[in-house]
Amino acid sequence: MEPTRPERAPGGHARRRDALRDLLREAGLDALLVTDLINVRYLTGFTGSNAALLVHAGDDADAGEDRTVLATDGRYTTQAAAQTPDLAVLVERACAPALLAGRDGAIGFDSAHVTVDGHADLVAALEHGDLQRAPGLVETLRAVKDSGEIDALRQACAVADAALAGMIANQGLRAGRTEREVARELEERMREAGAEAPSFDTIVAAGAHAAIPHHHPTDAPLADGDLLTMDFGALVDGYHSDMTRTLVVGTPADWQRDLHDLVAEAAAAGRAALQPGVATRDVDAAARDVIAAAGFGEQFVHGLGHGVGLVIHEAPAVSATATATLEAGMTVTVEPGVYLAGRGGVRIEDTLVVTDDGAVPLTQSPRGLVPESRDET
Amino acid sequence: MEPTRPERAPGGHARRRDALRDLLREAGLDALLVTDLINVRYLTGFTGSNAALLVHAGDDADAGEDRTVLATDGRYTTQAAAQTPDLAVLVERACAPALLAGRDGAIGFDSAHVTVDGHADLVAALEHGDLQRAPGLVETLRAVKDSGEIDALRQACAVADAALAGMIANQGLRAGRTEREVARELEERMREAGAEAPSFDTIVAAGAHAAIPHHHPTDAPLADGDLLTMDFGALVDGYHSDMTRTLVVGTPADWQRDLHDLVAEAAAAGRAALQPGVATRDVDAAARDVIAAAGFGEQFVHGLGHGVGLVIHEAPAVSATATATLEAGMTVTVEPGVYLAGRGGVRIEDTLVVTDDGAVPLTQSPRGLVPESRDET
Repeated sequence: MEPTRPERAPGGHARRRDALRDLLREAGLDALLVTDLINVRYLTGFTGSNAALLVHAGDDADAGEDRTVLATDGRYTTQAAAQTPDLAVLVERACAPALLAGRDGAIGFDSAHVTVDGHADLVAALEHGDLQRAPGLVETLRAVKDSGEIDALRQACAVADAALAGMIANQGLRAGRTEREVARELEERMREAGAEAPSFDTIVAAGAHAAIPHHHPTDAPLADGDLLTMDFGALVDGYHSDMTRTLVVGTPADWQRDLHDLVAEAAAAGRAALQPGVATRDVDAAARDVIAAAGFGEQFVHGLGHGVGLVIHEAPAVSATATATLEAGMTVTVEPGVYLAGRGGVRIEDTLVVTDDGAVPLTQSPRGLVPESRDET
Repeated sequence: MEPTRPERAPGGHARRRDALRDLLREAGLDALLVTDLINVRYLTGFTGSNAALLVHAGDDADAGEDRTVLATDGRYTTQAAAQTPDLAVLVERACAPALLAGRDGAIGFDSAHVTVDGHADLVAALEHGDLQRAPGLVETLRAVKDSGEIDALRQACAVADAALAGMIANQGLRAGRTEREVARELEERMREAGAEAPSFDTIVAAGAHAAIPHHHPTDAPLADGDLLTMDFGALVDGYHSDMTRTLVVGTPADWQRDLHDLVAEAAAAGRAALQPGVATRDVDAAARDVIAAAGFGEQFVHGLGHGVGLVIHEAPAVSATATATLEAGMTVTVEPGVYLAGRGGVRIEDTLVVTDDGAVPLTQSPRGLVPESRDET
């Protein structure tokens, strides 16, 4: 089908495409085929479920925009016109191959997302051009948030904070309630506070279940003396918050206090290490060293954290094997945990934004082991 | 790390692996590397978020099972032992490459799921073997449901039916309520009726919005005389239901009755065409011909339906370009729609199971344009 050409309008998405053009020129690419839907959304604002985008570098932004085309299928013609009035739109079900037909030059594709079969289709569609692996270019841009994105993340974090505070104020974490009831109430409270949805499946893990990092809530009731880990977040304007708190139901035992103190110390060390220019693996080490020194290194079975934004897990990774370096504007989680099989576990997680003056927590719920109503603190 | 070897236990998942072995032998493969998590779940019951499975053909089922290994990472060691006591488990973060180390022979991989970069990692890991494209083998098995799967789908459909019936009985579809409120109530009622979650983002589209096939609910209020399209489903035991009803708020106008009658006739034709041995493209044609004959072919902008099961859209596709042939045990949707920009639209969708005696609807809500409480019918 014929591409339709609407008028161009400047805006935040156009700025992101311009930034991408700089990366394309550095990489020696004439264009980038963007196939991941989140990347398409980031670069255009289009939210349909079938789309691809060909961003042309051009000699300058105007020339590049003139050859940049969004493709989607007939279900989304109206939506594309409304969401991307500044872009040419091609209506075709097989979006990515359709965008390559008749093109030439060096065209990058996201080899971290395109499948082996999908790649074969692209090769067949691109008769004259040269298809080159170009993974992670848009993800590199996405890792550093602009102020609008940070506002959305701040709001998503505030919604999760409000849900937990309301839950605690309402005595919602008492013995006898089930994990599932607590998870449901957290999610309902987040929706009431303005979440589009939970940002992932809410984890509520009581007692021995708290030793399972990614436990799914069950009908098991909370019991006095249980460690209770809640890992949850809210989706606001497409941006995800992520927070974990471990509380105790009733009065904590000494071993629970000790374990919680240890993880809290590791989390604080991780947060303090979040500075522009620091390798994320060193952030991981700052927290991990605290736990390892106490003899629990083997019980901290996952990375320290991850970038968070339009996707709940995105660049930069914050782990022992990560290769990223922090920049101001990155938003990451810090979430050390220690898991004792059969007994329980503690994880404390915040979402933070890196600034030139250190990291600012966006999640702001109290981190203590004993639930505190905000009114009382 | 070393694989651990627990005892073997027979069961439904083992039967599925045996069925897969038959396909491997037909394809001349010594083993299949299964990387899609849904396929891993289908073949093993394991539900963690990082896993891969190497299913070895072997000379017989026992020999094949002995060399079949599930890989996952340290977060899921306990869960894997509980969910797959009959399989060897390898604990390693990079699951898929780890499973190939030291293997040889002809090993298939799912080229429809493995990315270009992922494939490069597999090639590097498999020193002596021969890696071959083998897309869709597990999906072929999954397309034909066993009785346990059909029970789960029947229950998921019943949950959606109950939610809509409760909504209607409670006068929930009255003018003044917003699309978002209706969507929220449908989802809440599905949870109360036993859904783990909605099976996808609930669509509620009123008035002109009903002309947008995949509309997201807004704060727009329902008004008297609006067409109201609701497309929703429930997740039960991992299986998805999918149903659409278009009702009218208040009293229908003649054009709304005519449009609804047309789509209902097309849906009935599609359902009647669901027979073992029939090409799914002929099922699409049976419904599409009805709409095209009335002059609305251009306004039916999507395929007639899709398989549904562990994934909301799975094999077989039911569309004009599909290549599948129906078999007894397949579960598919039939969902013709006509969309009139600016005025509204009608879609009627059911989930059905194909049997030797024709198709049996699993969704059973009344299909009329005027809401009927079940008590009254």
